[in-house]
Amino acid sequence: MKHYPDPLALVDVALFTIREGRLALLLATRRNRDEPYCGALALPGGVIHVDEDEDAQDAARRVVRTKLGIDPPYLEQLYTFSGRLRDPRRWSLSVAYYSLVPQQVLEATHIEGLEFVPVDALPKLPFDHDAIAAMAIRRLRGKSTYSSLLTFLLPQAFTLPELHAVYEQVTGSNTNIAAFRKKVLDEGMIEPTGQRRTGGQHRAPDLYRRKGAGLQELKRTI
Amino acid sequence: MKHYPDPLALVDVALFTIREGRLALLLATRRNRDEPYCGALALPGGVIHVDEDEDAQDAARRVVRTKLGIDPPYLEQLYTFSGRLRDPRRWSLSVAYYSLVPQQVLEATHIEGLEFVPVDALPKLPFDHDAIAAMAIRRLRGKSTYSSLLTFLLPQAFTLPELHAVYEQVTGSNTNIAAFRKKVLDEGMIEPTGQRRTGGQHRAPDLYRRKGAGLQELKRTI
Repeated sequence: MKHYPDPLALVDVALFTIREGRLALLLATRRNRDEPYCGALALPGGVIHVDEDEDAQDAARRVVRTKLGIDPPYLEQLYTFSGRLRDPRRWSLSVAYYSLVPQQVLEATHIEGLEFVPVDALPKLPFDHDAIAAMAIRRLRGKSTYSSLLTFLLPQAFTLPELHAVYEQVTGSNTNIAAFRKKVLDEGMIEPTGQRRTGGQHRAPDLYRRKGAGLQELKRTI
Repeated sequence: MKHYPDPLALVDVALFTIREGRLALLLATRRNRDEPYCGALALPGGVIHVDEDEDAQDAARRVVRTKLGIDPPYLEQLYTFSGRLRDPRRWSLSVAYYSLVPQQVLEATHIEGLEFVPVDALPKLPFDHDAIAAMAIRRLRGKSTYSSLLTFLLPQAFTLPELHAVYEQVTGSNTNIAAFRKKVLDEGMIEPTGQRRTGGQHRAPDLYRRKGAGLQELKRTI
C-alpha cells in the first residue's frame, strides 16, 4: 500500500482579553530561528509535541501556559486550517483554538515579545493567521448573543454594566441595558452573588457571577 | 531545537442521508489489511494524501468520491479529534467532517461493503468513531432549528410536508406543520418554485426549494 508523508501538525491560539475597554488579541513575536517568519508578530502556536501533549487541546493549553504562565480559563477548538500552501515548510494543518482571559488575570503579565492588539487594529499576520483571527472574532461575536461566553472576559464577580459594556464592545452593537439585563437573567446565564461592589462613589452596584462553572448555551427551538 | 515526530493525520466523514424515512449514517467495512480494525464497520475515512489533497476538506471530498462516486452536495468540518490513544498505530489526529446527501442521489448506490445504518441503531464503532458520530448528530440536530441545513437531505424541489417530516425525524420533535411552515418561510430559508408536485392522488402540493445555493443561517441577536 502506498505510503504518504505526514503533514506538519500544529496548534494556534487566538487568545482574547479586554485591554483599555477594547477587545484585544494576544500576538507573540516569533523567536525560533528554525521557523518561518522569525521576528514577526503572529498568533501564539507551535507544533504538537507527541511525547508531551495528550491531545491537540492539551498542546494549545501548553502554548498558553508557556507564553503567559497561566492555564486558560476558557479554551475551545475553533477550526482546523490546513493545506499545501499555508506554511512555507510543507503541507500542514493547524488545529486552531480560541481562548478568553479576564484582563485582571493578565494585568501582571508584561512579557517580552507579547502584545495585546485591539482586534480592529491587527497588523497583517503571517501564515493564514489573518483568517484564523477573523474566524475567532466571528465565533466570539456569534456566541456572545446566545451563551454566557463573555463572562469569561470578566472577573468571577462583575456588575451588569461591566458585562453590558463588554457585550457592546465585542458585538459592536448598542443594546438597551434594561433589555440586556432582562435577557441575561431570564436566560439564566448569570446570577446575583448577593454581594455588592463596595468602594465606588455611587450607590454600590450588585455583583453577579456566571451560572454554572462552564459555558451556558441557549436552547434554540422552532 | 528539539524535533518532534509528526502525528498521523486523517480525515473521517459522518455522511447522513434519509433511508426508509429514518436519519441514517454511512458506514463502510474497513478493507485495508495494513490498517487496524480491518473488517469492521466504521465511518469512512483515511490518511491525508499530501501529494493529492489540497487541504483536509479536499481529502474528505476524495473519501466520499471514492466510496460513493459522488461529490457531496454539503460537506462541513465538524471537529478535530486527536490524541495519543485514539488510534492503535500512534498519536493521531482526525479532522472530522459531516455531510448530507439526499436519498435520491444514493438510491442507485448499492456498493459492496457500504451500509446506511439508522442513527438510533448504530453498532459500536472502532477508534473514537462513536464520539465523532454522536457529535455529528448533535451538530445536525442543533443546526436544524436555525438554518436551511436539512434541505440538503432533500431533492432540489420538495414539498413542505417532506421538509417537515425530515425535521421531525432529525430533531425527534413534534412540531405543528403550520407553525413550521410559517417559520421556514418567514425566515427565508426556502422559497416556492412556482411548480406543483404532479401525479399524486391528492391535490398537487406546492414545491419549494432552498433559498440561495449555500446554507442560510439565522441571525441571532439580543
